[in-house]
Amino acid sequence: MAVYTDVPVEELDAFLEGYDIGKLLSYKGIAEGVQNSNFLLHTDAGYFILTLYERLVAVEDLPFFVALMEHLAARGINCPQPVRRRDGRPLGELCGRAAAVVTFLDGVWMRRVEASHCTAVGEALARLHLAGADFRDHRTNALAATKLRPLFDSCADRIDSIQPGMLSAIRDELDFLDQAWPRGLPEGVIHADLFPDNVFFLGERLSGVIDFYFACNDMLAYDVAICLNAWCFENDHSYNVTKGRALLQAYARVRPMSDAELAAMPVLARGAALRFLATRVVDWLNVPPGALVRPKSPQEYFRKLRFHQHADSVHDYGVAARELA
Amino acid sequence: MAVYTDVPVEELDAFLEGYDIGKLLSYKGIAEGVQNSNFLLHTDAGYFILTLYERLVAVEDLPFFVALMEHLAARGINCPQPVRRRDGRPLGELCGRAAAVVTFLDGVWMRRVEASHCTAVGEALARLHLAGADFRDHRTNALAATKLRPLFDSCADRIDSIQPGMLSAIRDELDFLDQAWPRGLPEGVIHADLFPDNVFFLGERLSGVIDFYFACNDMLAYDVAICLNAWCFENDHSYNVTKGRALLQAYARVRPMSDAELAAMPVLARGAALRFLATRVVDWLNVPPGALVRPKSPQEYFRKLRFHQHADSVHDYGVAARELA
Repeated sequence: MAVYTDVPVEELDAFLEGYDIGKLLSYKGIAEGVQNSNFLLHTDAGYFILTLYERLVAVEDLPFFVALMEHLAARGINCPQPVRRRDGRPLGELCGRAAAVVTFLDGVWMRRVEASHCTAVGEALARLHLAGADFRDHRTNALAATKLRPLFDSCADRIDSIQPGMLSAIRDELDFLDQAWPRGLPEGVIHADLFPDNVFFLGERLSGVIDFYFACNDMLAYDVAICLNAWCFENDHSYNVTKGRALLQAYARVRPMSDAELAAMPVLARGAALRFLATRVVDWLNVPPGALVRPKSPQEYFRKLRFHQHADSVHDYGVAARELA
Repeated sequence: MAVYTDVPVEELDAFLEGYDIGKLLSYKGIAEGVQNSNFLLHTDAGYFILTLYERLVAVEDLPFFVALMEHLAARGINCPQPVRRRDGRPLGELCGRAAAVVTFLDGVWMRRVEASHCTAVGEALARLHLAGADFRDHRTNALAATKLRPLFDSCADRIDSIQPGMLSAIRDELDFLDQAWPRGLPEGVIHADLFPDNVFFLGERLSGVIDFYFACNDMLAYDVAICLNAWCFENDHSYNVTKGRALLQAYARVRPMSDAELAAMPVLARGAALRFLATRVVDWLNVPPGALVRPKSPQEYFRKLRFHQHADSVHDYGVAARELA
């Protein structure tokens, strides 16, 4: 939960004069998201989300995110649409931070994931990949699986305080990924953070996708591997093959995967687990005093990594390669 | 900011079947309030606030609060109106907690208080007192100024860690209030927590009052003294006579105060400062590890108490008694 910046009404009123969305009627800080400060705005023109970008997001990346949301929305992906200012710019400044107003999406995120939700998210991810195929901007994946070593090095001496033996296991995994990380798979713009709290449902229907602030260019199948990590494990961290099967089949119905992509799935899933392990380790070891955010346990992703290390093929994720080809 | 309980959508859907407010379209945890978990609901029927009452609120008090909001709303006070369930009850149960749905009020609370806001809140407080005059339920003020000793005793050995000498100053003040606390002043139902974040404005117009979870029966002038503490000090904790004068004059225009009430104002203000000092001290010294709430500084109210100790009459708050009689 996160509201890092309290916004005085006088500053918000002045900020909204740059927009054509009427008079402010109310605003409430939203206890969701960990990277930015989010507010639900009510104005004469309806409901909107106001986001203040905190230091965790690089300001130079913001035009990429905003353009991507506009691009995807124009192609029928239900995601927040940036509201442009009267001067045409999609970004303004509020309380010393870059700030954007986007449309409000109805829908709720699923605290208890069922296989039917995995079907829906697999299909939505594939549609997102197809809709992004002609997106021209480019953003390098700063958290690519092969770039994680400096993150772990930054807190190497404290990693074993989380769990004895974790540091050497991580270093072995980094070495493995350096040599095994796939090359030449289809690339494009990926969401890179499509966790359950970023996917909205209305009843059983997937109604929208939010939070594009990790979106970047990378292998499309890596995005699938992220979703396997995010959607297909139970609370006890055991992998659910029914959910994995549902997600992979639904994805492949919209965007068939090549043999090479399917063969790479265990390695991609290891890289994805290590990427979320990396940020969780760093967050866990760097909780500021008086923090308002309780970090999530790194051990969850250490255990998921162990599962992927024992996977031989995409079959271990619930499907035979021939089913998806 | 507070959302103590995450509500799964399945449980919320089941809970809302008890209400006649349509289908759930979205809900967001609100980063406001420190006592309860609050969510903004969007349903077919509009926007509502869902409150889950956490352990800090005694369940047996909830019917008082709910009945009071209904009573005041029926008398033209713009406050949240409890939405009754299909079975007529105003309270249900959700995630193991008592829960209520109330109407959503537009408006924003003022981060930067001006004298004009003090005028508005003084008038609103007096209207609230008049509207509550025929409210029949009764709730004892558990945090009455003369009942604070056990709260301070519970952490007496650590109080001087906040500021050397604080403990003996508090004990002297408790002794003083025991003998000086006024009796026989007009009583009624008071809000008891009318801080800026509980008062909404639309432009310059006061549009609503929220958070009745400290409401109780006590001296009406004590509620005025609470507002002097809450609204009329600057960020450097200096008292602003212009704001105090605005608040007191506006209150007295709607509900004239007796000479006895005016004469008691310095003592009432000391009791009010000590009451907020008490809960701030307890919160400050009892932050649980990993707390999501950063406690407010107790020193603010220690300094306000010092101001009131040097006040001789209501004149020190910005008005002469004869102006208000």
